[in-house]
Amino acid sequence: MSSPSPRPQTTAQTMAEKILSQRGDRAVYAGDLAVVEVDQVMVVDSIAQSFIERMERDLGAVPKFPERVSIVIDHVAPASTVSVAQAQKEAREYAAQTGVRLFDVGRGICHQVLMEEGLARPGWIVLGSDSHSTTYGAVAAFGTGMGATDIALAAASGKTWLKVPESVKVTFVGDLRDGVSAKDVALEMIRVLGADGATYQSIEMHAGGRFSRGERMTLANLCVEAGAKVGLVVPGGEILDMYDVPQWVYPDPGAIYVQQVEIDLSALNPRMSAPNEVDNVHDVSELRGLRVDQVFIGTCTNGRIEDLHEAAAVLRGQKVAPGTRLLVIPASSQVMEQAMEDGTLLTLQRAGAVLGTPGCGPCMGRHQGVLAPGEVCVSTSNRNFIGRMGDKDARIYLASPAVAAATAVMGKIALPGDVVGVGA
Amino acid sequence: MSSPSPRPQTTAQTMAEKILSQRGDRAVYAGDLAVVEVDQVMVVDSIAQSFIERMERDLGAVPKFPERVSIVIDHVAPASTVSVAQAQKEAREYAAQTGVRLFDVGRGICHQVLMEEGLARPGWIVLGSDSHSTTYGAVAAFGTGMGATDIALAAASGKTWLKVPESVKVTFVGDLRDGVSAKDVALEMIRVLGADGATYQSIEMHAGGRFSRGERMTLANLCVEAGAKVGLVVPGGEILDMYDVPQWVYPDPGAIYVQQVEIDLSALNPRMSAPNEVDNVHDVSELRGLRVDQVFIGTCTNGRIEDLHEAAAVLRGQKVAPGTRLLVIPASSQVMEQAMEDGTLLTLQRAGAVLGTPGCGPCMGRHQGVLAPGEVCVSTSNRNFIGRMGDKDARIYLASPAVAAATAVMGKIALPGDVVGVGA
Repeated sequence: MSSPSPRPQTTAQTMAEKILSQRGDRAVYAGDLAVVEVDQVMVVDSIAQSFIERMERDLGAVPKFPERVSIVIDHVAPASTVSVAQAQKEAREYAAQTGVRLFDVGRGICHQVLMEEGLARPGWIVLGSDSHSTTYGAVAAFGTGMGATDIALAAASGKTWLKVPESVKVTFVGDLRDGVSAKDVALEMIRVLGADGATYQSIEMHAGGRFSRGERMTLANLCVEAGAKVGLVVPGGEILDMYDVPQWVYPDPGAIYVQQVEIDLSALNPRMSAPNEVDNVHDVSELRGLRVDQVFIGTCTNGRIEDLHEAAAVLRGQKVAPGTRLLVIPASSQVMEQAMEDGTLLTLQRAGAVLGTPGCGPCMGRHQGVLAPGEVCVSTSNRNFIGRMGDKDARIYLASPAVAAATAVMGKIALPGDVVGVGA
Repeated sequence: MSSPSPRPQTTAQTMAEKILSQRGDRAVYAGDLAVVEVDQVMVVDSIAQSFIERMERDLGAVPKFPERVSIVIDHVAPASTVSVAQAQKEAREYAAQTGVRLFDVGRGICHQVLMEEGLARPGWIVLGSDSHSTTYGAVAAFGTGMGATDIALAAASGKTWLKVPESVKVTFVGDLRDGVSAKDVALEMIRVLGADGATYQSIEMHAGGRFSRGERMTLANLCVEAGAKVGLVVPGGEILDMYDVPQWVYPDPGAIYVQQVEIDLSALNPRMSAPNEVDNVHDVSELRGLRVDQVFIGTCTNGRIEDLHEAAAVLRGQKVAPGTRLLVIPASSQVMEQAMEDGTLLTLQRAGAVLGTPGCGPCMGRHQGVLAPGEVCVSTSNRNFIGRMGDKDARIYLASPAVAAATAVMGKIALPGDVVGVGA
C-alpha cells in the first residue's frame, strides 16, 4: 500500500495553489492532482488540424463552451504554402461550424490577442497550444501550454486535470537603470534559474508595483525557458487598474517555496542570450562587435507598443547599417495601429526597418525572415536553439528591443549608447 | 539562297524601332536583327542563383558595367525557407564582390524600385529577369523580360541582340469616368488584343497627356499579358516634367503598324478578368455578388501610392467583411513611407487591412497569402492563371484597387458604388 504524499504543514498557499483551488472544488497544494475549470482554450494555426482531428475523430465531441475556445492564425500568417493555406481554411470552417472564436491572419500573436481581447483575466485558467502560454501569468492567470490532445480534452469537457506545481519565489529588489528593460530582467532570471531550473514549477515573481502589463507579459512569457509550468507575477502596478476584479489572487504569507531567489534590478546591465541556449546569458558588452546579418524586433516576448517605442528611441534619425536587415513585426493589429497613430512606425520605416504582418514572423523559422547557413541574428524573441529560426548553422542572440535597435544601426552587436546621439 | 526580308517603304519609325536604332549602330526596322547597348540589367531574387551560375560557371565573366546591373530581392521577401534564404545570401555576396547594386528585402518590387531609383529612363534599354519588365515602357524605355542566360550575356557584354518587333498602335480617346482607372483600361486593352494578340510585338500606346507615371506603369506592365515584347506609352503628361531628357522618343508619322486599335475611355466601366486567363475580361457588374475569401491590393501592376489612395477612398470609415481577408502590400518602401506620412496606411489599417512587407507578396503564390483549394481571390495583380497564387483549384479575379477595396468591404465582388457612403 503506497503512502499518501505528505501534507504541507500549513494551509498558506502560493499563487498557483490558490488559483487552482479556486477553479477546482477543493483546496490543493503542490503535488496534489487538481481537476479545474478551464476559462479559455487557445489553439494556434499550426496545431489547429491536430486539435480538430482529436475533437472530431478521437473524441467525437464539440466544444462544451464555444465561447471559451479561441483559434488564432499567427504562426504562419499570411499562409506561405498551399498546405498551410488549407489548414487555415479548415480552421476557419471549424470556427464557423462550432461557434468558437477565430482571429484571422494579421490580427496578431495569440498571447497578445487574448490579452487585448480580455480572454485571459486574473484568476483564470488558460490553456494554450503554445509553450509561451505562460504569458498570461502577467495578469495572474494560470496560463500554461499543452499538446493538441490535452487541449482537445479541455475544449470538450470544459475542464482539465494537472498536478499542482511546486513554486519558486523570485523577488525583484531595487530599480532598473535607464536602458535596462523587462527583457533584461527576464534573461537574468533565466540565467539564475537555469534552462531546467524550474521544470514543472510555478515561478512566482514578486515585483511590487514595478512593471507595466506589457513588461509583466515579457517576464511571464520567458518563464517557460526555465522549464516552468506557469509564471505568475504577483498583482501590482498598472494592472490593478486595468481589470475589475472582486478579489485579486495574492500568495499567502507562509506559503511553501522550493526555492527562493532575489534579483537586484539596480545591478543589472543589458543582457543577451548567446547561442544555443536561453540561459547562456551574458552582458551585452561581452558580445559587442559581432557582425549581424538580421535583427528581428517582435514576437509575444517583445512585439508590443512599449517595445517599439524602446526601439524607436534608438532608431530615431538613424539608419540601419548597410548589410544588416532590420525586420519589425508588431505583435498585433492593435499594436500596428497604435504605432501608426503615434508616429512610431514612421520613425522605424525612415530608419530603414522592414515591416511585416502582425504574427509570429521568423521566431520559429517557418516563414518571413528565415536565416541562411552562417547568418547571425539578434532577436527580441524567446528561443535561440539550433535551427530555431532557419538553418542549423545560423546563430541567434536574444536581447531587448533597445539592444536590437542599436545593433541594427551599428551592424554589429551594440549597446544603445554606442549609437551616436542616443543617451546610454 | 534566301532572299532578304523586304525593306519597309518608309524611313518613318515606331517608338520601338527608334529606341533600338538609337541604342544600336544603325537604323533598324521591324524584322531586323539589332545589337544594342543595354542600359540596365535587372535580376530578381528567384533568378539570381541561375544568373550567377551562368556568369561564373558558363561564361567565366564578371559584369562589364557593374553600375548597369541591379539585383532586387522581392519575389520571396523576407525569405520563407532556408533554401530561399541561402539564395538571397549568395545574391548579397555576389553584389558585394562585383559591385552591382543590391536592393534587399523590403525595398520593394523590382520594377517599382528601378523606376524610383532612376534606373529605367526614357530611351534606355532595360532587360529584366521578370516578364513584367515591360513596365519600363511607361517612361519610354524599351523594357523587356529575358531568361537567366540572356540576362547574363547582357551583363557580361553590356549588349544584347534581338529581332526588332513589329508594332501595334493603340490609341486612347475620350476621358475616363470617375471610378474607372488605368487598370480597367489595361484589362480592356488585353481583352481587345487577346492573350496572344501581340506576341513578340511592341504595343505602342498613344495616350496624349493622359495618365500619371504610375498609371502608365500599369498600362505598360500588362502589355506582356497580350504576349508583347515591349509596351511603350508615347511620352506625355506629367512624365515630361519628371525627366531631364534632351530629346524624347516619339514615333514618326507614317511609321508602320501591323494593327491599329482605338479604345474609347469614356465608354469604359470597371473591368475584371475572370479565371483563368487575363483576357477573359468582363464588366464587374456581370460578376457582382460572388463570395470572396481574399482580396489582395499590391504588385508591380497596382501597388503604388495612387493605388493605395484609390483603395483608401473606398475603405475610409468602412470595415472589411467578416470572412474576407484584405491583404495590402505596398510596392516599395517609398510607397510604404508615403502612405504612412499621408495617413493612407492608417485608413487601411483601421478598415481591417492586413499589411505585408513591400515586395511581390502572393502574386505568384510563393509566400504571404497563398490560396487554399476552392478559395476565391480578387487581386490587383496581373495574372489569374490556374495555380498562380496557390492551389490549382483556387480562382483569381483581376481588378482595379477601387473594385478590390469595394469587394473587401462587401465580402463579395462589388463596385465602389455598392459600398454605402462611397460615390459611384
